[in-house]
Amino acid sequence: MIDYRKMINKEVTLQGFAEKVRNLQWVQFIVLRIECKRIQITIEKSDEKNKEMVEVVNNLTNESTIKVTGVIKENEKVKMGGMELIPSKIEVTSKSAPELPISITDKMAANIDTRMDNRFIDLRNDDNFYIFKIQTEFVRAMRQYLYDNDFTEIHTPKLIGAASESGSEVFEVDYFGNKAYLAQSPQFYKQMAIASGYEKVFEVAPCFRAENSNTNRHATEFTSFDLEFANINSYEDVMKLEEELLVAGLTAVKEKYGDLIKEKYGKEVIIPKAPFPRIKLQDLYKELEKRYGYKIPDHDIGDMNAETEKLTSQFAMEEYGHEFIFVTDFNKTKRAFYHMRKNDVPQGYDLIWRGTEITTGAQREHRYDVLESQAKEKGLGKDIEFYKNFFKYGCPPHGGFALGIDRLTMLLLGLPSLKETMFLFRGPNRLHP
Amino acid sequence: MIDYRKMINKEVTLQGFAEKVRNLQWVQFIVLRIECKRIQITIEKSDEKNKEMVEVVNNLTNESTIKVTGVIKENEKVKMGGMELIPSKIEVTSKSAPELPISITDKMAANIDTRMDNRFIDLRNDDNFYIFKIQTEFVRAMRQYLYDNDFTEIHTPKLIGAASESGSEVFEVDYFGNKAYLAQSPQFYKQMAIASGYEKVFEVAPCFRAENSNTNRHATEFTSFDLEFANINSYEDVMKLEEELLVAGLTAVKEKYGDLIKEKYGKEVIIPKAPFPRIKLQDLYKELEKRYGYKIPDHDIGDMNAETEKLTSQFAMEEYGHEFIFVTDFNKTKRAFYHMRKNDVPQGYDLIWRGTEITTGAQREHRYDVLESQAKEKGLGKDIEFYKNFFKYGCPPHGGFALGIDRLTMLLLGLPSLKETMFLFRGPNRLHP
Repeated sequence: MIDYRKMINKEVTLQGFAEKVRNLQWVQFIVLRIECKRIQITIEKSDEKNKEMVEVVNNLTNESTIKVTGVIKENEKVKMGGMELIPSKIEVTSKSAPELPISITDKMAANIDTRMDNRFIDLRNDDNFYIFKIQTEFVRAMRQYLYDNDFTEIHTPKLIGAASESGSEVFEVDYFGNKAYLAQSPQFYKQMAIASGYEKVFEVAPCFRAENSNTNRHATEFTSFDLEFANINSYEDVMKLEEELLVAGLTAVKEKYGDLIKEKYGKEVIIPKAPFPRIKLQDLYKELEKRYGYKIPDHDIGDMNAETEKLTSQFAMEEYGHEFIFVTDFNKTKRAFYHMRKNDVPQGYDLIWRGTEITTGAQREHRYDVLESQAKEKGLGKDIEFYKNFFKYGCPPHGGFALGIDRLTMLLLGLPSLKETMFLFRGPNRLHP
Repeated sequence: MIDYRKMINKEVTLQGFAEKVRNLQWVQFIVLRIECKRIQITIEKSDEKNKEMVEVVNNLTNESTIKVTGVIKENEKVKMGGMELIPSKIEVTSKSAPELPISITDKMAANIDTRMDNRFIDLRNDDNFYIFKIQTEFVRAMRQYLYDNDFTEIHTPKLIGAASESGSEVFEVDYFGNKAYLAQSPQFYKQMAIASGYEKVFEVAPCFRAENSNTNRHATEFTSFDLEFANINSYEDVMKLEEELLVAGLTAVKEKYGDLIKEKYGKEVIIPKAPFPRIKLQDLYKELEKRYGYKIPDHDIGDMNAETEKLTSQFAMEEYGHEFIFVTDFNKTKRAFYHMRKNDVPQGYDLIWRGTEITTGAQREHRYDVLESQAKEKGLGKDIEFYKNFFKYGCPPHGGFALGIDRLTMLLLGLPSLKETMFLFRGPNRLHP
């Protein structure tokens, strides 16, 4: 991002938003904003050679965009960074209507729906703007970790022929008069890549869920950071890789944006120590009951719910001083058919961070016969024939997981909802803009 | 990728595919394949301590996966790399059915449709396998170029509320009883990011086109490498950035895979010299007529067609010795309404590489009034209201382009069709697997 201090005493041409135009008796001030970095432009009205510029600024509305040429001078009297831009030329590249639909500086002045209607204004607020700068760095660093470990990037189809994984909660598409569906995840195709001989694959891509529910952590479309890798010995290898991946991501974020995140969002970026703590679900239930008097409702037994997740983080912090915790040994009835089991126990985990589940990971079942019987048990038939086929001609042991990057960003910055953290949120009642 | 030579005289445990099992009178051989890298495993049958292993290999089918522990020894008699793996333990991790549906080694033995039906086997062929290793490196290097230039990654929605850009060729989705559409490109949302104050943004994501046509360069779903950036002076800045981006990508590909691409696909990776040649469409028409006797059909005047693209590359090579050429000054009736015009000429270009258009790029129209009149001229109304809104409250001059990475990979490797170059091709008649 731009650093005006490096430009002192040089002639520069800059383009940005005229955030605030003030027209005083003897002087005009413009706050120029370039990706949240600001500098004051100062125009002396009495100076004859400024005549034309003064006229331009007389007609300038806040949030118009300008192209300005001038010299940046140190001036300790200027509050904004102790410097100012003395312009020789100002050109208006686009003029804003005088009244904005929502406030930029006071983001809480409008409700979240009005803000989403005007997201392109809403994002000009610094706190919103930085979300995607920070997310870019987080995802960049995680991708880099995968490149360094020789992962192959794949792009799997989102248009699929069968409503595969669950049947429910799938969007239907009119496909030249036939039916297609939108992929809920790249799960089956990541595994196809393993059966194709790729040892390690990843994909960062949209997933679609036709869930008609309005919570702060669900969206009908979100971006998933997905990976799968072969030749593991157990799901311990999967957890280990996820630890390393998150450490790599958070280390980069802390280095580049740690101070800013503390200042703007009041959150400390903590680089977690590996190994993260691990606990079996049954032991967790006991701890939560003992410590917080919480008893899991009957219909959630063998699984976690939102309340459990919250308390689990509290427990992890109290017991291990750790923000992350792996929960293992879920009940097989609560896990997907493709999770490998050992003595009937699914060989996978949920990873909890800051009170919320961020991953379900597992070793997958790669043995055709076992996979078939587990699919049958869940009542899955013809729709997954194509998937079972992947395991007929040799497929090595493998595992993987997915991270929703919108959710990850929400937790990193302590934001209350995915509506805050997605470039454009999509929910049952939200398809615009 | 694995380098067996670095493991000589060490005990190793390796996992991979048993590509070929040969059971001779005194000895058993297995070709172990790990991501296209092969090593011979040699088992002396007479050795008493191999008894158990010999039994395992007796029942081993080609393409099963195994986990093998042993020592890699130099042996100049072994044709495969002058070394062999002497195992102490072999475990079968998954057994392949004895007959594969298609040949791995002879990919032309099956037609393309059968190959796509069995893509997970088809990809085990080295020539197919490497496609995604090479593409990974290409895209990695282009992303790195963008990170180095302070681009922000965005993830824009694929579910949209209006069949925006053209109205036709859009997939319709049942969205909780209402209609949604699949985004044909992130164009409008990239521009929204610019209006939101991001100077430079990119996205690598699927695009959807309901085009009911079967050509070698169209798919109903493909992966687009999209970018947009602000504060440009003209579309020259856009072409310049695209040059740099492609040089960065091709340089990395040549370094890592140049020799392999030459050997396997018979293609030289040529790092193009910038600036790439540029020609106006009208001048190009004259050249093509003069040189090759080709006259553009009336209905294509102002635009290019497949034949023109092919000849344009021939011309670029003959005239400039260059694989790339920018064609500018298209007719406004053939370009999108959001391309900026100057004296009625669209301020954009097509980039041609190896006989095929790989990009349409342009400076965009950022002035609300002009944009509105250009939209009206194309008969676009209510559906793009939300988009026009982005330009009401200040939006700087900007431009951008998109590259289809599947097509790019096809041209890089000289493959005949997107069906070869997509992980799983999607066309009007192809939704499986």
